[in-house]
Amino acid sequence: MTATFTAVDSIRRKRDGLALTTAEIRSLVEGYVDGRIPDYQMSAFLMAVYFRGLCDREMTDLTMAMAHSGDMISFGDNPRIVDKHSTGGVGDKTSLVVVPLVAAAGVVVPKMSGRGLGHTGGTLDKLESIPGFRVFLSPEEFRRTVAEVGAAIVGQTGNLVPADKLLYALRDVTATVDSVGLIASSIMSKKIAGGAQRLVLDVKAGRGAFMPAPDRATELARAMTAIGKGVGLRVVAAVTSMDQPLGLAVGNALEVEEAIGCLKGEGPPDLQEEAVELGAHMLVLAGVEPDLPRARDRLTRTLSSGRGAEKFEQMVTAQGGDGRVVDDPRAVLPRAPVALEVTSAKAGWVRSIDALAVGHLTMRLGAGRQRKEDDIDPRVGVTLGAKVGDRLEQGALLGVVYAATDGDARAAARAFEKAFELASEPVPPPALFHGVVS
Amino acid sequence: MTATFTAVDSIRRKRDGLALTTAEIRSLVEGYVDGRIPDYQMSAFLMAVYFRGLCDREMTDLTMAMAHSGDMISFGDNPRIVDKHSTGGVGDKTSLVVVPLVAAAGVVVPKMSGRGLGHTGGTLDKLESIPGFRVFLSPEEFRRTVAEVGAAIVGQTGNLVPADKLLYALRDVTATVDSVGLIASSIMSKKIAGGAQRLVLDVKAGRGAFMPAPDRATELARAMTAIGKGVGLRVVAAVTSMDQPLGLAVGNALEVEEAIGCLKGEGPPDLQEEAVELGAHMLVLAGVEPDLPRARDRLTRTLSSGRGAEKFEQMVTAQGGDGRVVDDPRAVLPRAPVALEVTSAKAGWVRSIDALAVGHLTMRLGAGRQRKEDDIDPRVGVTLGAKVGDRLEQGALLGVVYAATDGDARAAARAFEKAFELASEPVPPPALFHGVVS
Repeated sequence: MTATFTAVDSIRRKRDGLALTTAEIRSLVEGYVDGRIPDYQMSAFLMAVYFRGLCDREMTDLTMAMAHSGDMISFGDNPRIVDKHSTGGVGDKTSLVVVPLVAAAGVVVPKMSGRGLGHTGGTLDKLESIPGFRVFLSPEEFRRTVAEVGAAIVGQTGNLVPADKLLYALRDVTATVDSVGLIASSIMSKKIAGGAQRLVLDVKAGRGAFMPAPDRATELARAMTAIGKGVGLRVVAAVTSMDQPLGLAVGNALEVEEAIGCLKGEGPPDLQEEAVELGAHMLVLAGVEPDLPRARDRLTRTLSSGRGAEKFEQMVTAQGGDGRVVDDPRAVLPRAPVALEVTSAKAGWVRSIDALAVGHLTMRLGAGRQRKEDDIDPRVGVTLGAKVGDRLEQGALLGVVYAATDGDARAAARAFEKAFELASEPVPPPALFHGVVS
Repeated sequence: MTATFTAVDSIRRKRDGLALTTAEIRSLVEGYVDGRIPDYQMSAFLMAVYFRGLCDREMTDLTMAMAHSGDMISFGDNPRIVDKHSTGGVGDKTSLVVVPLVAAAGVVVPKMSGRGLGHTGGTLDKLESIPGFRVFLSPEEFRRTVAEVGAAIVGQTGNLVPADKLLYALRDVTATVDSVGLIASSIMSKKIAGGAQRLVLDVKAGRGAFMPAPDRATELARAMTAIGKGVGLRVVAAVTSMDQPLGLAVGNALEVEEAIGCLKGEGPPDLQEEAVELGAHMLVLAGVEPDLPRARDRLTRTLSSGRGAEKFEQMVTAQGGDGRVVDDPRAVLPRAPVALEVTSAKAGWVRSIDALAVGHLTMRLGAGRQRKEDDIDPRVGVTLGAKVGDRLEQGALLGVVYAATDGDARAAARAFEKAFELASEPVPPPALFHGVVS
């Protein structure tokens, strides 16, 4: 009765635009996790937060209350440990490139990743397209891999941030997902419980991002750096473009192949730029290089030398995967039985490629999940034959659809063609980075 | 699953400020009542409504969806049937006066009333202080009393507006009570399910009202007349002052005594004015008089003739109560064992009498309920010795506290004295009516 009474007071105060106290926020989160505060009060509170927002201090308090709701992992205070997180996009395989790349330069990356949901892919799903690759390591295996290789990418194990799992499930069915304060606290609580002390965030903005408007994405980036300051975590947040897919490949095995190519210095240019830029911030945070220009140089050299690709091979092998994937991706990775080329009906310059549409069509091909329970097909997806700004002649390749059946391929090809918008005038290539908040 | 999915869409649309369709609102209410839509979605929806409001059409749809969630009573289409409802205040015994008064003038009033909660009293509690009075009549008894006497005041029976009961309980614990659209729909759904076709509303504004700000009270009045228009119900809504208590008596038996005095033409002036004014609107709505001036005249004459008091006696007798209460209230009504006079420590003009404070102190004396389950003591309360604008000399009577024990009386007397604010300059008597919306 007392707890319920307190909860309704907190709801009312937030509803009226007041900031809640640290104790109030902790009591709400603890009370919700242990069942004293019912779903119906929490959902009303979340909707009030949707409308009123959270100040930096409230976000910090919410983050810490959630982080402390379950296990807290620690990797000690090694300053070379840096984590990386992306808010998710279409064709976003940056982690597959940047983690081995910076590890090859001396940064230590014990990274916990997630699975894909909706139109975006997940790093774990991509890695699992490599035969034998295990994303679930025991705590000992995880530590040993990080110690020996300098990097590991695993799924969340144990009871990490149960408050976030409960709250996210409730937000999902009460239209309260889309709140900067709640999103920022959710992401940061998982990073903090996972032991992060230095963190580079890639906040996606654009058609294919969860937060399409660049100013909202910047607000989210700012919120997460503010939480970082509040809890003593060093955070750099880049806001990057997700209007068109990142790189050329969308789909799990296809993206692994592209990431390996990029680690060998073969591009594509936007993926390489993003990996080098985010990686450079990681090197500076780790103290491996004193400034960004030198960090960029170092990583560009690491790419050309092939040491990033070697590191990826070590990591794959350490996690049980077939390391030969680095030398010959096509021989090792599963291939879709149907490949259908899609060509342009007219000539022009590519004005836009709708990342959301591409995300949805690859999800329908089986590359992603509509619901958490869905299985995915690692083989399917698309590769782009052109990017925004490219000149296309009539009949030129827009891309290739990789599908399980001819019917799937034809349906996807129609949607894929529609995702391209052509202009009759040259289109300047878009900027990848909107800005950096730290 | 489908219903849940629809609910989250409706929440999102309301959250984004869109108007919901009639079918959507019906589906939400029906789904909630039959359990397909869980509390946590409804509470998120209610909080979104708190922030975004409801347009007139949505309020009308919500009202009708709630009204149809249970039994619908009908008294046929007798144009002389008019209902009356007050949003509740301190010392508000207007129904006890106006119902027999208009019935004596030919209006038919089959009125369903409620119990008191918080700082305001309820008409049923007041009537029950008359020995033998039964507020729960069988449907047959109710009809017979209305047919023979022209008026009856009863409690709600049967399964009337279950959606409102469920929603109100949820709003109470999720800080979503205070929404004009939800309040208006709740009141109107009960009136419509209760069979009202013509309705005079008394919307209280001021310290002792649920909606203190006059502009919010006016908004509520406007919302309820809009719903009336939407459903073909003739509604007149008066916004009246509840800054100081209405009349001089606060407490159940004390208010019955005062109401009887008023029906005999003995005032107090504000209670008589309110009863005549609201009653006049009822006479015009019923077609008993063609306009307000004639209706006021008629009711003033009914008061002086004593026919209102006679009608009250008939109603009390028909509902099992001791009709001698009209001739000699003090002999019939229960009396508190302790009566403590409170006098003014200084001279001056009464600037204000805090109705909320008086409501709370009489509740603590036992005249009202903090929780629905609480019992009430019909004997206790206060009578005022002065009203706003009155001149007081030092030592003059502020009022009398009626209590069950000396300790209760002394505690109440201290709070009662504090409820008065004196001025050193004359204070004009306040207006009772802020306005009328129809």
